[in-house]
Amino acid sequence: MVDCGEGTQIQLIKYKIRRSKISHIFISHLHGDHYFGLIGLINSFALLGRIQELHVIAPSALQKIVELQLKVADTRLCYPLHFHPITDTGHLMTIDDIEVTCFKTNHRIECYGFSFSQVKSPRRINPEKVHAYNVPIPFYTALQSGRDYVNENGVIINNEELTTEAPHGKTYAFCADTKYDEAILPHIKNADMIYHETTYLDNFAEQATFRFHSTTKQAGLIAKKANVKKLLIGHFSSKYDVLDDFLSETREVFPDTDLALEGVCYLV
Amino acid sequence: MVDCGEGTQIQLIKYKIRRSKISHIFISHLHGDHYFGLIGLINSFALLGRIQELHVIAPSALQKIVELQLKVADTRLCYPLHFHPITDTGHLMTIDDIEVTCFKTNHRIECYGFSFSQVKSPRRINPEKVHAYNVPIPFYTALQSGRDYVNENGVIINNEELTTEAPHGKTYAFCADTKYDEAILPHIKNADMIYHETTYLDNFAEQATFRFHSTTKQAGLIAKKANVKKLLIGHFSSKYDVLDDFLSETREVFPDTDLALEGVCYLV
Repeated sequence: MVDCGEGTQIQLIKYKIRRSKISHIFISHLHGDHYFGLIGLINSFALLGRIQELHVIAPSALQKIVELQLKVADTRLCYPLHFHPITDTGHLMTIDDIEVTCFKTNHRIECYGFSFSQVKSPRRINPEKVHAYNVPIPFYTALQSGRDYVNENGVIINNEELTTEAPHGKTYAFCADTKYDEAILPHIKNADMIYHETTYLDNFAEQATFRFHSTTKQAGLIAKKANVKKLLIGHFSSKYDVLDDFLSETREVFPDTDLALEGVCYLV
Repeated sequence: MVDCGEGTQIQLIKYKIRRSKISHIFISHLHGDHYFGLIGLINSFALLGRIQELHVIAPSALQKIVELQLKVADTRLCYPLHFHPITDTGHLMTIDDIEVTCFKTNHRIECYGFSFSQVKSPRRINPEKVHAYNVPIPFYTALQSGRDYVNENGVIINNEELTTEAPHGKTYAFCADTKYDEAILPHIKNADMIYHETTYLDNFAEQATFRFHSTTKQAGLIAKKANVKKLLIGHFSSKYDVLDDFLSETREVFPDTDLALEGVCYLV
């Protein structure tokens, strides 16, 4: 889960998301709309008798806040809660086959984006070629990891001859709250999908910068410059009643854009 | 407002309660279901441009939690927020014509009930009598405060002769979370209405005590022994789907009982 605003539990129930599926919660920054629901979720997990570990990855001050709240309530959790304070950008952890990295965004307070990448799968054995070169089966794992094969006569068969490249691992990047800043580009380059905030429409560019937020066209430009495949936009200011202009303005710059709407699933 | 669980803002909107009506928030204790919504409300007040003072009366640790959360978000509130840590029982404050006192309840952590009493109104002038005794109008205020009238000849006219008693000031007491404990009786004696928790039905009395909560019949007994006029019950365990038994069991002990239901107004 990425970020956890007040009322997250209500939404989990509404959209029938099993809480046991949540093993890691990433918090981008400590503005309330991004974490006020966390302490309630942590408590509910305990009331529901969770035993599975929970990992919270967040700016370091969050640990102090949560621990203080647990302490004053004399709450002893019945499951292991692990905090991972974010102290540096780059590699955070690998969860199953997903590598998670984080990067700084340009917001009023310390704020991080997260990139989730499928670790590259093993190379694919070419059955005809390994047969033709008489490669014994026990060598297949080495071939999949990219090593060349040396046969009985000391002849080197290049790996590229025997295998084909692994399928491309997908990447999704969450760019948190941020004003327009090209410094994030290297971290989201070529991603299959990114989420970028668009708090304001284009005519509020000045206010956006002043408030450390972005506009539609700025998000589109980031997606374009990062050469990503798909852009999701969200974090719309509550002063807008309809979102049509968000979509059309962003698509002017980056056509493959969708609104990030509550309860909708997007395939990376 | 008394207590402020997660999602309080959603309910305020749902039931069309103007936020500007909220000047004081009393927090009974620091279990999440009683205060996790407070920090969000405090933030929203700021986003909505509140200028009116807000008073929070709560166990002392709450101030530290809220101030820490405001600090990490670099939030500067645009309205005065005053904390009143509860350090002792008894008189807390007088708000307009309401005197607020607090008392300890018997819960797993430090927990307070609150009693709200209308300050007694001025005595009522009896128009016929003041006319008969020729009391000059400037003396009326003194009569209303209970003083006797001395006429030109030095004759004392007793106040009781000239005025009648003020109408009875109403009292509502909120008994927070508590296990059955008669120690609260003096603080809620003769109240017009009390709220007392009934987390469990009667057959869970042992579990109720163990968890520092009360049953239906225990709440009824408290209401009866305190000689209150009306009892509201609530804080039902989420394991019960229907509440009929809560009402019938409590009414066996104290007939003038109602369920405290979301969105319903009860006249004291």
